[in-house]
Amino acid sequence: MLFFVNDYGEGAHPKILENLNKYNFYQQIGYGNDDFSSLAKERIAKKCKVNKDDVYLLIGGTSTNSIVIDSLIKSYEGVISVSSGHINVHEAGIIEAFGHKVISLNGKEGKLQANVLDKYLKSTFTNPSLEHMVIPGMVYISFPTEYGTLYSKKELEELSTVCHNYNIPLFIDGARLGYALASTKNDVTLDDLKEFADVYYIGGTKIGALCGEAVVFTKNNMPSHFTTWVKRHGGLLAKGRLLGIQFETLFENDLYFNISKNAIKCAEKLNNAMKEKGYRFLIDSPTNQLFPIVSKAKIKELSKNVLFEFWEEYDDEHDVIRFVTSWATKEEDVDKLISLL
Amino acid sequence: MLFFVNDYGEGAHPKILENLNKYNFYQQIGYGNDDFSSLAKERIAKKCKVNKDDVYLLIGGTSTNSIVIDSLIKSYEGVISVSSGHINVHEAGIIEAFGHKVISLNGKEGKLQANVLDKYLKSTFTNPSLEHMVIPGMVYISFPTEYGTLYSKKELEELSTVCHNYNIPLFIDGARLGYALASTKNDVTLDDLKEFADVYYIGGTKIGALCGEAVVFTKNNMPSHFTTWVKRHGGLLAKGRLLGIQFETLFENDLYFNISKNAIKCAEKLNNAMKEKGYRFLIDSPTNQLFPIVSKAKIKELSKNVLFEFWEEYDDEHDVIRFVTSWATKEEDVDKLISLL
Amino acid sequence: MLFFVNDYGEGAHPKILENLNKYNFYQQIGYGNDDFSSLAKERIAKKCKVNKDDVYLLIGGTSTNSIVIDSLIKSYEGVISVSSGHINVHEAGIIEAFGHKVISLNGKEGKLQANVLDKYLKSTFTNPSLEHMVIPGMVYISFPTEYGTLYSKKELEELSTVCHNYNIPLFIDGARLGYALASTKNDVTLDDLKEFADVYYIGGTKIGALCGEAVVFTKNNMPSHFTTWVKRHGGLLAKGRLLGIQFETLFENDLYFNISKNAIKCAEKLNNAMKEKGYRFLIDSPTNQLFPIVSKAKIKELSKNVLFEFWEEYDDEHDVIRFVTSWATKEEDVDKLISLL
Amino acid sequence: MLFFVNDYGEGAHPKILENLNKYNFYQQIGYGNDDFSSLAKERIAKKCKVNKDDVYLLIGGTSTNSIVIDSLIKSYEGVISVSSGHINVHEAGIIEAFGHKVISLNGKEGKLQANVLDKYLKSTFTNPSLEHMVIPGMVYISFPTEYGTLYSKKELEELSTVCHNYNIPLFIDGARLGYALASTKNDVTLDDLKEFADVYYIGGTKIGALCGEAVVFTKNNMPSHFTTWVKRHGGLLAKGRLLGIQFETLFENDLYFNISKNAIKCAEKLNNAMKEKGYRFLIDSPTNQLFPIVSKAKIKELSKNVLFEFWEEYDDEHDVIRFVTSWATKEEDVDKLISLL
Repeated sequence: MLFFVNDYGEGAHPKILENLNKYNFYQQIGYGNDDFSSLAKERIAKKCKVNKDDVYLLIGGTSTNSIVIDSLIKSYEGVISVSSGHINVHEAGIIEAFGHKVISLNGKEGKLQANVLDKYLKSTFTNPSLEHMVIPGMVYISFPTEYGTLYSKKELEELSTVCHNYNIPLFIDGARLGYALASTKNDVTLDDLKEFADVYYIGGTKIGALCGEAVVFTKNNMPSHFTTWVKRHGGLLAKGRLLGIQFETLFENDLYFNISKNAIKCAEKLNNAMKEKGYRFLIDSPTNQLFPIVSKAKIKELSKNVLFEFWEEYDDEHDVIRFVTSWATKEEDVDKLISLL
Repeated sequence: MLFFVNDYGEGAHPKILENLNKYNFYQQIGYGNDDFSSLAKERIAKKCKVNKDDVYLLIGGTSTNSIVIDSLIKSYEGVISVSSGHINVHEAGIIEAFGHKVISLNGKEGKLQANVLDKYLKSTFTNPSLEHMVIPGMVYISFPTEYGTLYSKKELEELSTVCHNYNIPLFIDGARLGYALASTKNDVTLDDLKEFADVYYIGGTKIGALCGEAVVFTKNNMPSHFTTWVKRHGGLLAKGRLLGIQFETLFENDLYFNISKNAIKCAEKLNNAMKEKGYRFLIDSPTNQLFPIVSKAKIKELSKNVLFEFWEEYDDEHDVIRFVTSWATKEEDVDKLISLL
Repeated sequence: MLFFVNDYGEGAHPKILENLNKYNFYQQIGYGNDDFSSLAKERIAKKCKVNKDDVYLLIGGTSTNSIVIDSLIKSYEGVISVSSGHINVHEAGIIEAFGHKVISLNGKEGKLQANVLDKYLKSTFTNPSLEHMVIPGMVYISFPTEYGTLYSKKELEELSTVCHNYNIPLFIDGARLGYALASTKNDVTLDDLKEFADVYYIGGTKIGALCGEAVVFTKNNMPSHFTTWVKRHGGLLAKGRLLGIQFETLFENDLYFNISKNAIKCAEKLNNAMKEKGYRFLIDSPTNQLFPIVSKAKIKELSKNVLFEFWEEYDDEHDVIRFVTSWATKEEDVDKLISLL
Repeated sequence: MLFFVNDYGEGAHPKILENLNKYNFYQQIGYGNDDFSSLAKERIAKKCKVNKDDVYLLIGGTSTNSIVIDSLIKSYEGVISVSSGHINVHEAGIIEAFGHKVISLNGKEGKLQANVLDKYLKSTFTNPSLEHMVIPGMVYISFPTEYGTLYSKKELEELSTVCHNYNIPLFIDGARLGYALASTKNDVTLDDLKEFADVYYIGGTKIGALCGEAVVFTKNNMPSHFTTWVKRHGGLLAKGRLLGIQFETLFENDLYFNISKNAIKCAEKLNNAMKEKGYRFLIDSPTNQLFPIVSKAKIKELSKNVLFEFWEEYDDEHDVIRFVTSWATKEEDVDKLISLL
C-alpha cells in the first residue's frame, strides 16, 4: 500500500536513531536537565534568536497546546481560535479540561482574519456584560493551518498588531512549522515569528522525530515555574534525553529545515500532476497536505492501493480526500500514486 | 562520577534501540493503532492473563496516574494514598488539577495498612456528613513503594478485601514493578496482581525503556472511550510505535523481568556491604533503593565521586541519603562505591 | 424612571416575604433538609407529576446550569447549545471551569433546530476521529429562549426524539419558565416537559423569588450523591429554608403560574401598542422580552425616562433595544412607556 | 425539642426581614450593583477601615472559600490548612474541583501554629524537587476555628509574619467572625485583621442573615475581574439586593456585633453550668461551640429533648457531643438544657 494518510507514519530520521544509540549509556540527570536537552535548547535558541532559557522541549502537540495556553492565560480567560483550529476540534477538549473556553471564530481557508478578530475583540471588550463573559486571553493560530494554508508575513503582522492592541498574546501552533517554512509560497521567516508571535512551537513529531515539540517564548515571557506547569499537565519526561537528543540532532546543520523540503517537493509534484489531470481541490494548499475532490468511484478504486484520509463529502458523486506527504515520503511513491490517479 | 542518583540515568535497553532502528521505516497508522502496539499488548496480555484490549500503553508515570485515576472515579470522588505516595508529593498536583482530592492516610514504611484503611472507610461512609465530604473512590498504592518497600501477598490481599468491601477499586502504581517482582524478598506474582488489583501498571521508564508504562485492567474494567481520556490528559502519542516497539521488545522472552534482576543484585551487594561496614538504614528496603544513614562528613567526601540524592536530615551529625541501582547499573560501579564507603 | 431593563428589578412576591417572616423562628435542620424545602418539593412534584425526590432546590440559574450539566455528563463529554445560549455567552465560562466544552450550533431565533442537531450528532458519532473529539453528552436549550421565543410542542418532541436516538439527555433551562407557560402563543405543558425533557428547572429568581430555581428530574435520573455535586459547585445553602419557604409559597395555589401572567399581559400590551405605532422588531417574541428596532434619536430621548437594555446596532440610524416586563410590572408603567414611544 | 445542633437553625434577624419588606419594590439594577449593596459595602468598609471597593458580598461560606482561594493563587499553587480546616473536611472537595490541593498540616486545638507553618514552608521552598511539588500559595485559617478556639493577637501576628516572609497571603475564614470578636477571651480586633490578614470574611449566614458573607480585602488586593471570578464559581446573585439589604442592616448601628454577644453569653452560661456539674470537655472553647464529653447513657436520655450533634467517640462509655448557641438562642432554652444535664 502507498502511504499518504498522514505525516507521522514512519519512525525518526536515521540520524536521530544513530545519536540515541551513540549516547545511550551516557548517564544523565532527569527531567530535562540533561546535557542533550541543554545542547538542543542552545541550538534552537541560536536559530530563533532567543535566549536558551526561552526554549522548552515537550512531548507532543496536544500536550504543548494545553500547557502553553493554560500557563499563559488566567483561569477565567479563554483562547480564540478559528473553528477549524486543532484545539477546537481534535484535542478531546483538553483546553476545557483545564478550564478554558475555546472561543471559536469563523476562519477563511483555515486562517483567522485580522479584521474578524479585531471586530470580535472590540465588541467583547466594550460589551457592558463583559464581566459575565469569557474574557479573551490569547489568540491561537496554526502555521500552516489544518488545511495546509499559510499566513503571509503581512497577515501575521496584522494579526499580531490586533493582538497587541488588546494586550493579548499570539500563540502559533507549529506542529508542521518546517513544512510552512519550506513551502515555495511562504514569505515568513523565523525572525518574523519572533517578532509577531509571543510564543510558538517547532513541531518535531511530524518532521523527523519520534515525538517532541520545541516551544519558543519570544518575549522573555516563559511563565515562572514552567516545569511545574509541564508536570501538572502530565508532560514531563523522566528521561529528558529522549527529547534532547532528538532536537539537538534536528538542529545540527539545519537538519530539520532540510528534511522538511522533501515533503514540499513531493506535495508539489503530486499537486501539479493532479491539476494536469484535471482534478479540482477543496483548497489550494501550498504545503504538505492536499485536499483533492475525487469521484466516489475513483476513491473506491484508489483505496485498494493507497492509504489516505476521507475528509468530507463534496457532492453526491464526489468526496474530498486528503493526501499527506512528509520528510520521509519517497518520490517513487509519489510517482506510483500519480500513475494511479 | 559514579551514578547512583536514580534509575533513569541511561537510555534504553540496546535491544529496544535495535528494534526502533529495524522497524523505522515500516509505515504505521498513528495513535496506538500500529502493529507494534498491537503486538506489545498481545504479549503483555498473555503474561498478565488478561485480554489484549485490557492493556493500554502510556507515556509516563505521572500521566498514567492522572489518566487512570480520573477515568475510573467520579468527579466528586477522591483517591486514598499514604501521605508519602507519589501522587501526594511529587506530581505537582496533577490529580487535583483534574479535580480530585488525594486523601492522605499515614503509612508505615511507605505502605498503606489494611486496618488503617478499613477504619478510615468505615468512619467516612458512616459519617452523617458524608455528603459534605470528599467521597473515597479509589485506593492508590505503589509497589514497590516510594521507600523501596514491598507489600507481601497477604498484605495485598487484605487491602484488596477492604477495598472491595466498600466497592472501591485498588490501583497499583508499578513504576518500578519489575524491581518488586525481582526482589528476593518478594512473594507477589503477576497472578496476584490480577487477582488483588483492579488496575496496575508495568513501569518501563525506570526499567529499560526510554519512556512508557503499560496499564493493565484486570477486571475487564477499562473505562469506555479510554483513548479520549488519554488524549484529554495530553498523553496520546501520534507515533504510538514508540511505545509499541519498546514494550513488544521488553515482553519478548521476558526481557523486562530479566533485566530487572540486575538492579536487585546490585542493590543487595551494596546493602550487604554497607551493613558489614556498620551502616544503619532509615528503612530496610528489599528493592533497588537504599536509604543509608551517613555522617555528614562522609557525605561530603562521597559527593566528590558519587552522584546520589539527599533524602532528609537524620540528626545533627547524620543525613539519610538514597542510593538507587537499575537495570543498567554496572557491578564494577557498585564495587567502586563500596570501596569508597 | 420607568424600569423595563430586566425581570429581576424588584424583590420577592409579598406572600414570600410574609412567610419568611411568619416562619422565621421555626428552628430547622440545615442544608435543604428543613420542613419548608420538604413541603416545596412535595408541591412541585405533585404539579410536575414526578416523585418528591426528583426535585431539588438551587440558588440561581448559572449555578443550576453548571450543577445539572456537570453531574449528568461524563468528564470528557460536552454539552450542545445554540450559540446564543446562556451557557455559551453569559455565564463566564462556568461550564468550561468544570471541564466541559459548550459545543455551539447555529440557532434560528434563539432556537435549536432538530434537523441541525441530528445532522451534527450523526456526523460526530460516525466520525472516524470521534475519540479525538469532544463527545456530545447532553443537549441544552432554554424555554423561553434568550430571545424570548418559544419551542412548540412539536419542536420539543422532535428535539427530544433526536436526543434519545443518540442516548443523550435533553436539559431545559427554565429560568423564565413561568413566562413561557403563561404565553398565549404557547402550546407546551408541564406534562410535555416531563415527557420530552430529561431534566428542566423552574426559575424563581425572575418570577417572584429573591433567588432560587427548582430542578425537576423527569426520569428518576437524579445523579447519586446529588447534594455532594451541589456542595462541590458552591451551591448549597446552610439555611435551605430560604429556598424552601419561597418555593412552597410559589407553589401554593399556583401562585407561580398566576403571577407569570402579568408579565405576558404587560408585554402583549406594549407589543401591540408598538406595532400600532409602526415599530418593527428584531424578533417577534411571544413572551416577556421585546426587541424593538428604534431610531437612535428616539433611544436617546427615551433614555431620559426609561431604563432598558441596548441589544445591538441595527443600522446606522437604528439600534435594537430590549424591553422586559415581569411579574411585578405595573400596567400604569406600561401605559406611561407607550405614551413615550 | 431544644435546639443546640447548629447556629443556622432560625431565619434572619427581624430587622433584616423588616428591611427586605420595606424596600421590596424599590427597583434596582442587578448583580450586586444595587443601592443596598453599595450602602452595605460602604458601612462595612468604614468599620473595617478599607475602601468600599475592597468589600464584596457573597452568598455562603463554601462558595466564598472557593472564590477567594481560586482567585488569589495561581493554578498550580495549593492552599495550606490545618487538617481539621473546613476546606479540608467539609466542603466536598470544592477547592480541588477548581484544581488546587489543600495542603494539610497538623493543628493544635484546631489552630495552625506559626512554627509548624514556618518549618513546612522552609522545607518546601528549599526542596530541590520543589518544581515537582504543589507550591504553597496561600494560608487558610478559621477564626474562630472549627473547634470554636481563638487565635490570640500574638498568634495571628506570628502567622502573618511567617506568611509574609514567604510572600504568601493569609486568608481568614470568618464564617463565625462575630462570635470570635464577641468572646470575652478574645483580644483580636478588626484593626488587627486588617493588619495581619490579606483577606478575610465576615460571616452572615451564622450570625443573623438568611445567607451571605462579606469579603474584605485588606491590602487593595482584590483580584481584577473579581465579578467574573464570582460568576464563574456560580456565586453571583441576579438580585444582589438580597445580600445588600442584609448587610446594610447588619452593619447599621453595629447590629452584627451586638447580636453576636447573645451566642457568647448563652455559651458561657452553659459552659459554666456544665463545669459546675463536673462535665469535662474535649477542648475548652471560648466561643459558641462547646464540646462536652458525655456518657453514652446521658446522651441517649438527652436525645429525647435536645437536638445536638454527635462529634466523636471518646471512650467505650463516653462520646463527645457538640452544643452550639447562636444570635437567636433564648436564654430560657439554655436554662432548660442545663436542667436536663
